[in-house]
Amino acid sequence: MRKKKSSESALHEVEGIKQPASVSDNSIKNIKLKRSVQPSEAVYIEKILAGDISYLSRAITLIESTNLKHQEKATAIIEHCLPFANKSVRIGITGGPGAGKSTFIEVFAKQFTSKGKKVAVLAIDPSSSINKGSILGDKTRMEELVKDPNAYIRPSPSGESLGGVAQKTRETIILCEAAGFNVILIETVGVGQSEIAVHSMVDFFLLLKLAGAGDELQGIKRGIIEMADAIVINKADQDNIKRSNLAKAEFSRALHLYPPKESSWQPKVTTCSAFYNEGIDAVYEIIKDYLSLIMSNGYFEKRRNEQNKYWLLETVNQQLKNNFYNKPTVKEALKKYLEDIQKLKTTPFKAAEELLKLAQKQ
Amino acid sequence: MRKKKSSESALHEVEGIKQPASVSDNSIKNIKLKRSVQPSEAVYIEKILAGDISYLSRAITLIESTNLKHQEKATAIIEHCLPFANKSVRIGITGGPGAGKSTFIEVFAKQFTSKGKKVAVLAIDPSSSINKGSILGDKTRMEELVKDPNAYIRPSPSGESLGGVAQKTRETIILCEAAGFNVILIETVGVGQSEIAVHSMVDFFLLLKLAGAGDELQGIKRGIIEMADAIVINKADQDNIKRSNLAKAEFSRALHLYPPKESSWQPKVTTCSAFYNEGIDAVYEIIKDYLSLIMSNGYFEKRRNEQNKYWLLETVNQQLKNNFYNKPTVKEALKKYLEDIQKLKTTPFKAAEELLKLAQKQ
Repeated sequence: MRKKKSSESALHEVEGIKQPASVSDNSIKNIKLKRSVQPSEAVYIEKILAGDISYLSRAITLIESTNLKHQEKATAIIEHCLPFANKSVRIGITGGPGAGKSTFIEVFAKQFTSKGKKVAVLAIDPSSSINKGSILGDKTRMEELVKDPNAYIRPSPSGESLGGVAQKTRETIILCEAAGFNVILIETVGVGQSEIAVHSMVDFFLLLKLAGAGDELQGIKRGIIEMADAIVINKADQDNIKRSNLAKAEFSRALHLYPPKESSWQPKVTTCSAFYNEGIDAVYEIIKDYLSLIMSNGYFEKRRNEQNKYWLLETVNQQLKNNFYNKPTVKEALKKYLEDIQKLKTTPFKAAEELLKLAQKQ
Repeated sequence: MRKKKSSESALHEVEGIKQPASVSDNSIKNIKLKRSVQPSEAVYIEKILAGDISYLSRAITLIESTNLKHQEKATAIIEHCLPFANKSVRIGITGGPGAGKSTFIEVFAKQFTSKGKKVAVLAIDPSSSINKGSILGDKTRMEELVKDPNAYIRPSPSGESLGGVAQKTRETIILCEAAGFNVILIETVGVGQSEIAVHSMVDFFLLLKLAGAGDELQGIKRGIIEMADAIVINKADQDNIKRSNLAKAEFSRALHLYPPKESSWQPKVTTCSAFYNEGIDAVYEIIKDYLSLIMSNGYFEKRRNEQNKYWLLETVNQQLKNNFYNKPTVKEALKKYLEDIQKLKTTPFKAAEELLKLAQKQ
């Protein structure tokens, strides 16, 4: 008991959380808003800061809208919420299909909500329409969490480009934080570039794995292991315990071969069974230790600043590229140059030069 | 003896090399060119294709020149050399200061030259002026190789930006290949972003390590281990043999935890002592095996095509960014926005939008 209490206060402390005056009341969820009348920005802001889930959801819908007016409204709301944001722990959770992400997130989120924390669960998945359905879209997979008044689950925004989805998720984080959520969990499937995006918006990056299953099965891309602050081997139960412990030992050894992280954190490996709710508290403790470390050595703040800078530059760079490659003449010429390069008729550098000249003429 | 012969023919086969009609004669090195008269492009091309080292060197100097006329001339020469390029094995060799790169490269290159191959040794090191002198600049470190008529050593081009240096190295590879070099070794110090650049221009990526020395000492950045096709533990001699074998076992185990490579190659770990010239033939055999695999499964060609595409897009993207961020108004505004973001006055996305609008006005 005492241990739990100290965990709670430590987490509270490291977060530096100032709880908003009024925290959400689940009953607010049931208030029906008149959809025909769009509330003013001021109403949105007031309600979100009061922890109103219904307004939070509608504001996130504005963020995700392709309608320009909606987007402008969203931007104004975000701007006003900004001073109240930034006060949460952001945790990225990735794992291939079958690693048991939904079950894990459900019991893991409970670790926080049972201690009075408010948890928002988001997802990044630009290709959700074609993926194997493991991402949050299927809310019913988290039956318990959905009913938890201290939890808020928001499926992945639809969108084709990772950049677009990542931006929407970043903005959603701001609103969730302003609404009083002090733990943000962000889920990805670990099969693509999404993990780099998630890694660039979270404080802690958790990789969920299965013992024994080859990585082909788990669909984990190279590079993800190196980003992990913790590797959690799930489904360590029944016949699988021995294999899971073996995998834990192997990963622990392997991680020691890596160069140290800038955070000076030594990534941890642990086993758990989300299904039997075993070992989840250990994951919670790892994150608590990690936060204590990076709050005391200044890495927490440094990293968040770097992430903000990253997203500014990343957004600009992405837009510069879009503007360039979407020019019809560039599109056509690029195709030809790629063929020429393949036939060794030109070098990549000469082709690049000519392509840039072509775009300038327009 | 017989083994060596088969290695040689295998390597010859996998490269698909058509040896240029006349291969270099070391005596050509001694011909003094009249520096005052710039030879015509036609002369350059003819001499390079004949394997003339002196003209090759001068053409590389044109590539590295900041003079626009020199660059134009270089571009024309490269273009004519292109159909004769691409016929080599390109190997990236990286390792922190003290890993023994120079000694290793010297004996490793001999593996090829002793079998009649021609080896060019290049370096990528955008920060050569401030580094610890481990890169090729200090030619005297390869005393034997310098005298080898089948070897050509070219120090790193000076240049501030990695992009610039990488481009020059890529173009230098083309000329070296046209001059009949069938093995290109590219050295980096492994402390920065250079390895991604090298990885994007080689067929095989070799990481040189020391047993026992922490990675802090070796200065190897995270991510590099994942790129390696082979990890070679150097200085495995005398008192160090046991530790080196232990390190070998550890790395072998660790590498098995990684997701498989697109090449379907399982990275190898081996020990060697470059100083005592022990175990170098094993490294040669590994590369031979790798080449056999990727030539037969089509990855060799696929990868080279992808690399060319990468460099075309990378060059364009780099230039787009340069054009944008070098605008004085953008520079000034960016500074302000970064401050605002830090103070949570704006979001990275809003700042990016405003920055892009600002640049368009000009």
